[in-house]
Order: sequence, then structure tokens, then C-alpha cells
Amino acid sequence: MRLDPVLDRIDADLEAATERLLRLLRIPSISTDPAHRADCRAAAEWLAEDLRSIGFADARLRDTPGQPMVTGRMGDTGPRLLFYGHYDVQPADPLELWKTPPFEPSVEDTPEGKVIRGRGASDDKGQLMTFVEACRAWVTVHGALPARVSILFEGEEESGSPSLVPFLRDHAEELRADLALICDTGLFDRDTPAITTMLRGLVGEEIVITGPDRDLHSGAYGGPAVNPIKVLARIIAALHDDHGRVTLPGFYDGVPEITPELRAQWEGLGFDEDDFLGGVGLSHPAGEADRTALEMIWARPTCEVNGIAGGYAGAGFKTVLPSQASAKISFRLVGRQDPAQIREAFRAHVQSMLPPDCTVEFHGHGAAPASVMSTDAPAFETARRALGPEWPKPAAFVGAGGSIPIAGYFKTELGTDSMLLGFANNDDLIHSPNEKYDLRSFHKGIRSWARVLAALAETG
Amino acid sequence: MRLDPVLDRIDADLEAATERLLRLLRIPSISTDPAHRADCRAAAEWLAEDLRSIGFADARLRDTPGQPMVTGRMGDTGPRLLFYGHYDVQPADPLELWKTPPFEPSVEDTPEGKVIRGRGASDDKGQLMTFVEACRAWVTVHGALPARVSILFEGEEESGSPSLVPFLRDHAEELRADLALICDTGLFDRDTPAITTMLRGLVGEEIVITGPDRDLHSGAYGGPAVNPIKVLARIIAALHDDHGRVTLPGFYDGVPEITPELRAQWEGLGFDEDDFLGGVGLSHPAGEADRTALEMIWARPTCEVNGIAGGYAGAGFKTVLPSQASAKISFRLVGRQDPAQIREAFRAHVQSMLPPDCTVEFHGHGAAPASVMSTDAPAFETARRALGPEWPKPAAFVGAGGSIPIAGYFKTELGTDSMLLGFANNDDLIHSPNEKYDLRSFHKGIRSWARVLAALAETG
Repeated sequence: MRLDPVLDRIDADLEAATERLLRLLRIPSISTDPAHRADCRAAAEWLAEDLRSIGFADARLRDTPGQPMVTGRMGDTGPRLLFYGHYDVQPADPLELWKTPPFEPSVEDTPEGKVIRGRGASDDKGQLMTFVEACRAWVTVHGALPARVSILFEGEEESGSPSLVPFLRDHAEELRADLALICDTGLFDRDTPAITTMLRGLVGEEIVITGPDRDLHSGAYGGPAVNPIKVLARIIAALHDDHGRVTLPGFYDGVPEITPELRAQWEGLGFDEDDFLGGVGLSHPAGEADRTALEMIWARPTCEVNGIAGGYAGAGFKTVLPSQASAKISFRLVGRQDPAQIREAFRAHVQSMLPPDCTVEFHGHGAAPASVMSTDAPAFETARRALGPEWPKPAAFVGAGGSIPIAGYFKTELGTDSMLLGFANNDDLIHSPNEKYDLRSFHKGIRSWARVLAALAETG
Repeated sequence: MRLDPVLDRIDADLEAATERLLRLLRIPSISTDPAHRADCRAAAEWLAEDLRSIGFADARLRDTPGQPMVTGRMGDTGPRLLFYGHYDVQPADPLELWKTPPFEPSVEDTPEGKVIRGRGASDDKGQLMTFVEACRAWVTVHGALPARVSILFEGEEESGSPSLVPFLRDHAEELRADLALICDTGLFDRDTPAITTMLRGLVGEEIVITGPDRDLHSGAYGGPAVNPIKVLARIIAALHDDHGRVTLPGFYDGVPEITPELRAQWEGLGFDEDDFLGGVGLSHPAGEADRTALEMIWARPTCEVNGIAGGYAGAGFKTVLPSQASAKISFRLVGRQDPAQIREAFRAHVQSMLPPDCTVEFHGHGAAPASVMSTDAPAFETARRALGPEWPKPAAFVGAGGSIPIAGYFKTELGTDSMLLGFANNDDLIHSPNEKYDLRSFHKGIRSWARVLAALAETG
């Protein structure tokens, strides 16, 4: 089956493909917010219907205790490929910082070219549709796919994927494949596609500290009454030493140093630390004092506070001594760091710093170890070569700071290796107001998948 | 002019007086929230109208850059007394913790007697109306007041009183008096009225720390990008040492040790630290390690965090590395601590702990030195004696943890000494959900002012 007419078809169908993506982006499928449960289901229904229209005849929703999965399969010959993407999106707040409404997407002209603007445009609806559109073009031109393709779309990626492992476990036979393809990562730079081979893991913890049994007047009680915000601040401050290292006992157990070879390869990528930080208004790398920014993001564990709240945060001033204070804290893991052990060390740290009269509630939010792919498998080199004609520069094997625990779960639950290939840009503003996806990413992403499908089928 | 018929009139009029207070409590005059500006004005109008109905013929609103003042005067003979109260109230959030709506007040039966429930019932609408009702009874019975009384009601006490000093300065001639009476404090205990002679001062500061110029993905940027919540936590944690002392250089300059005599008098009051803390669910005094709870509240300076916010605080989890984090921090001052110097020391502390790439905005919220009254003035002993027949135990001279900067301003701007007499109880839940004022406080408070007015007029 020839590739060129498929690529031509993709070019001809780009406007219609963009319209389809805009329809999906209009559905506010925020999985972390219970108020958007019906929207998550609506996004899943839309995807199942679209897959059926391509020829994934059995595409359907699969209920879970949380948001539904979408599955579908097609093809009788060639290697078994399992494609994964997620249809849920991050919350859109702070809403006032969006220049256009987050769920009224459009194609915008910018000095750098056309972009698709809206929540989820890049993370991950735009990305997952690159694969769907590649399949559509293959089927339109040849009446069939060049490989046996299974689809798995998840709706809880932005809220810790609580239903994923049970679902994989319950349907391992059905989902097992020769290779999993995951589209939730970025280009290395505008001209260099990236195959991600190292992914950080994640442990999320929410803590709520309670002191007095009610909000108090800070004049009438300030001093003798314990203030949970001050307690929380001390707990957070003590999580790092003065060199930016995390202080939890055993935190760095299982953290490998990167090899000199990998370090040399990464240095060859020409990563510009000043540009990277300058792009978000910064000029000094924070974090561990003796590490480069690239190493910190790709190969070092971190601890971040993602949210904090307590007392009066409205306009003006209120002299309250609050009953409660809370924080959301997450750890990014590398190598063989054990999520359960790190959660335990964190909770022990909090308990050890709790003064008399304070209590703490812990709420766990997901736990996933880091993933390191074996790039010796031939599929990686095959995909790298297939991408050659599409992009100005050869594809690179890179690390990724974000956590895509699915790769680890595919390995542990299905025994299937994963290849991560995505087309997002660093300036896509994922998780931020004004998220976008370059139309170029969308277009070349679809073409890239068409090429990779062909190449994997050939060497299959 | 005889006192007894005035007291009888107060008893007979209690139900109508309570109805009047409920009307005032229905107006949500939250001064700190710009959305309630019209409500503040409505509360002021209601008070001016009520004062005119009593005989304060010139009672009226006086515009300021913020909420209006209410003034009025009455009487041609006797000592000049200036009465102060504030008609603004604290915000009512968290609303969900109120058992009845905060601005739909009612008289409730409780096992401890009838209470008036609603925001402002105790702080300060119920208290200021004790004086207004005492005046009404005097005028009803005798056609006149026993002294020359000026009224000053403020509408910005809960938001730092920005317009107060300029107003006092501009109208010093009109407002100057032999003695100022302030009703915004509490009973020492249910049976012991208290004349407050030491008031802590207050410095409020809001800080907003900015790191990256937008919210970031904590996976894509965590590590090299500075996290303003972590910076803020370190700044707050460093404000106290391990013994609960504030670490700002010079913070304890001008903080006097209390005299052995005063310590002995306070010990004689039978303050029960366990009861005090137990009433709000605590059992261990926090704060300075070597001080009693009573000393900390009445005679020691403190630093409290009144609010903190940053990143994602909604349901679920969001792996954001936020652009900003903010906190509202207040200092209570004693003795001769200088508010300006403490604000400066705090800002220097924040600046000194700010890493590269972080900026900070400071917003000052009020500054007032502590007030220490001279209890040698005969009015204090006169008032103490006048209260004798009304209460089970003799009145005590006490300190107060809260800040009522007005006493200091009356001294510096008008040259007028202040006497603070109030009838709130410790369990009134001021600044908290379900605020109340005991009907007994309201009733005996009115009677107390009638007695004090008579006594001050006599000794003149």
C-alpha cells in the first residue's frame, strides 16, 4: 500500500480535519471537576462515533468508576499496535486570563503561523486526533489500515488516572499489542521531532491541616492559638534544603546518574537554557544547584507545591486566624524511585512537624513510577527513519519532565513496550490560559503518523 | 436627674430596642468588599435617622474617600463625651458554616439564654446600639442627656480605618472632648465587666510574589522554574524561630515587660488557660514558649498569617506551577513598637529572602500603634464604681488582644483620652460564622451606659 496518496489525502482533508478537532474542543471535558462529568462522557461519545465513521466498527464507551474509556479496533494483518491518547483536559482557570473563551476554540492567525486556540488543543485532543486523522486518510485511500490497530482513549489523565490500571488488568488480553503508541509529548524544537524514552513518574498528595476548631479573631487568639497556615509554611519550607535538594529521607534512593553517553547526546541537541527560561519570564535556573535545567526536567526528581489555600483570600484584609490550611504537593520521580515509599516518607515528614493540637488529613492523588524505554527495540529506529522525510531535522531520543504513567502501566499490566511521539511545542501553554496547538503540528503530526504506520507495518 | 426611671424605661423598651438592632443587622455593611459599598452607606443612613429620632438633631453622614462617618451631637451642659462605635462588619465567609443566614438575624433561645444571632451582632452593631439605646432612654425619661454627647460612628474599622485619621484631623475642633467612650470590647467573664486599658496595635501587609510570567506545567518546568508558593512558604516559616519569637530585626524594640503589680492583678482574675484554649478545640498554648496565654494576648506582640493563596485550590488535583502566590500577614503591637519600623523590617525580610527571578508587590493594610490608657484619670474609677450595682462582680482593668487603633488616634489627633467599655463575651464568634450577642449583654450593656453617663455627669 503506497504512502504518497495517503499524504496527499491528508493535505486535501486538512480543513475538514481541523473542523472536527474544533468540535471536540468545544466539549469542556474537565475530568478533575465533578461538575463536568457529563461533558467528559460527551467527549467520549463524540470520539466513539468518529471512530465508527472511519471504520473502527466496534468503537464504544467502556464504563469505569470514573470517566469512561473509549476503545475500538480495526485491521486483520500486520503488527498489533495500541494507540493511546486522553480526551480529558485541565481546568481552564484563571478564566480572566484567557483572551478568548477556553471552550470556544478557533483557528487564529499569528506572526508564527496559524494556531488552534482553546483548552485541550495541544493537551491532548489535538494530539490524539493526529493519529485518528492518519487512520482516516489510510482507510479513505486504501480501504484499510496497514496494521492491526487498537485505540484506547482515557478520560482521567489530568486527574491521576484512577481507573486505568484496573481497566488494563481486566482487559489485558484484548489490549495487549506488539507496541503501544502514545501521542501526548512534544517536538524537541520546531524542526526536530522527538521520541520520548524517559518519563518522570508522579506522586500527588493533598494535605489539610486543622488547628482551632473554628476560624478565630487573630487579635483575640493570636499567639496562644496555633495557626495552621504557619504550620503548613514550615512543613513546605522544610521539604528542600538550601541547595534545592528534597530533604525527605531516602528520597534519592533509586535515582540514577545519567550516563556520559546520554549526557553527550543531550548536549548535542543544543538546548538553550536561557531561551527555555526566558520564554516564561525567568533567567536563573532554580532547583538543584549543581544540575542543568535539561537534566532537572528529564532526569532529576522534584517536589512542587501546586496549590495552597487558607484563611481569607478575598479583597481587602480580614484578621482571621483560620481553622484550616491546605496544600496540593506533587513529586516527579525518575529511575527506580518507589512512589509508595515517597508518599510514606512525605506523610512521615508532615506528621513529624505537626505541633500539638494540629491534625492532618492526607488525600492521595495518583502514584506512578518513572518509565525508561528500551531504545534497542527495532521499532524505535524504524520510527526515527520514517520521520526523516517529514521534518527538517532527524528525530531525537529525549526525556520528558511530565508524567505519562501509561507507558509504565502498559509494560507492567500488558507486557507491551511504548513509543511516545508527539508534536506539541514548548509555547503551547498547556495547563495555562490561552493553550494552543500549531496548525503545523496538527498537519505534520497527521502526516508523521501516516509515515510511522507504514514503516512499522513494513518491518512489522 | 434620677437614674432609676431611666433604668426602668430601658427594661420596658428592651423588645423594641432589640427590633431596632435586628433592622441594623439586616444591612450587610461589609466594608472590606467593594461590592457592599452601598450597604455600608445604607447602614450609615439608618443610624443617622435613628439618632435624629432620639434628638441628635444634626445627625448626618460625613463623606470620606471610603465609607461615610456618622456624626451627631446633643446636650448643652455637663462633661463633653465623644462616643465611638463602628457600623461596618467582617465578611461572612465561609457562608456554608453559618447555621442561619448571616444577614437574616434573629433572637434565638439557647441553653445559656437568649442570643441575637447574625454578622455584626457583637462586633460592633450590638455594642454601639447599647449606647444609643441608653441615650434614647435618658431623653425619653428626662427630655435631655446628663452630659454633652457627640457621636462618631465609623464604617471602615474592619478594613484598616484609612479615612479615620484625616477625618479626625480635619474636624478636631468639633470632635475634641473631655473623654472618649468606645464600645468595641468584651466582658472579662460573664459576671465581670472590663475596662480595657491596654490595646494592641496592628500592622497589616499583603504580599504577592511573582515568579514565572504565567502558570506552568509542573512536569515541563518543575525544577528549573522558581515556584512562588515555595518561596512564600520559606518567607513565612522564617518569620518565627523555634521558640515562637518573631525573627524580624528590632521587632521587640519598645516591648515592655509587664510590671509585677499588673502581673499580680491579672493572676487574681482567675483566667483559665485550659478553658480559654479548650473553647476552640485546643489544649496547648502555641506562641512564645515562656509566656502565659493571657500575657501573649494582652501584652505581647505577635505575627499571624491571616490568609494564603496560590496555584490550584479547587476539587481534585492540577499539576500547575503557579505564576503567583500571596499572603495576608498581620502584626499585633504592644508598648512603643513603631508600626512604620515593623512594616519596613518585614518588607526587608521578604526582599532578603526573594530568589532571583521573583518579584514582590506589597500592599499595606493599616498601621496603628498600641494604646496604653492612664488609669490614674478619675473617670476610670468613677466608671468602675458606677458599674458596681449592675454586675455580679466589680469591674476589672484589663488588656485586649484585638486592635482598636481609634483610642490611639483620639489621643494623638484630638488630645482626648479614651475609656473602653464593652459587653461582648468570648464565645460571641466575632469574625467567625454564627456570630452572636447575648441578649443579656445587650440589656445590661444599655443599663451600664445609662449608669456610666450619670456618674460621669455627676463628677463632671
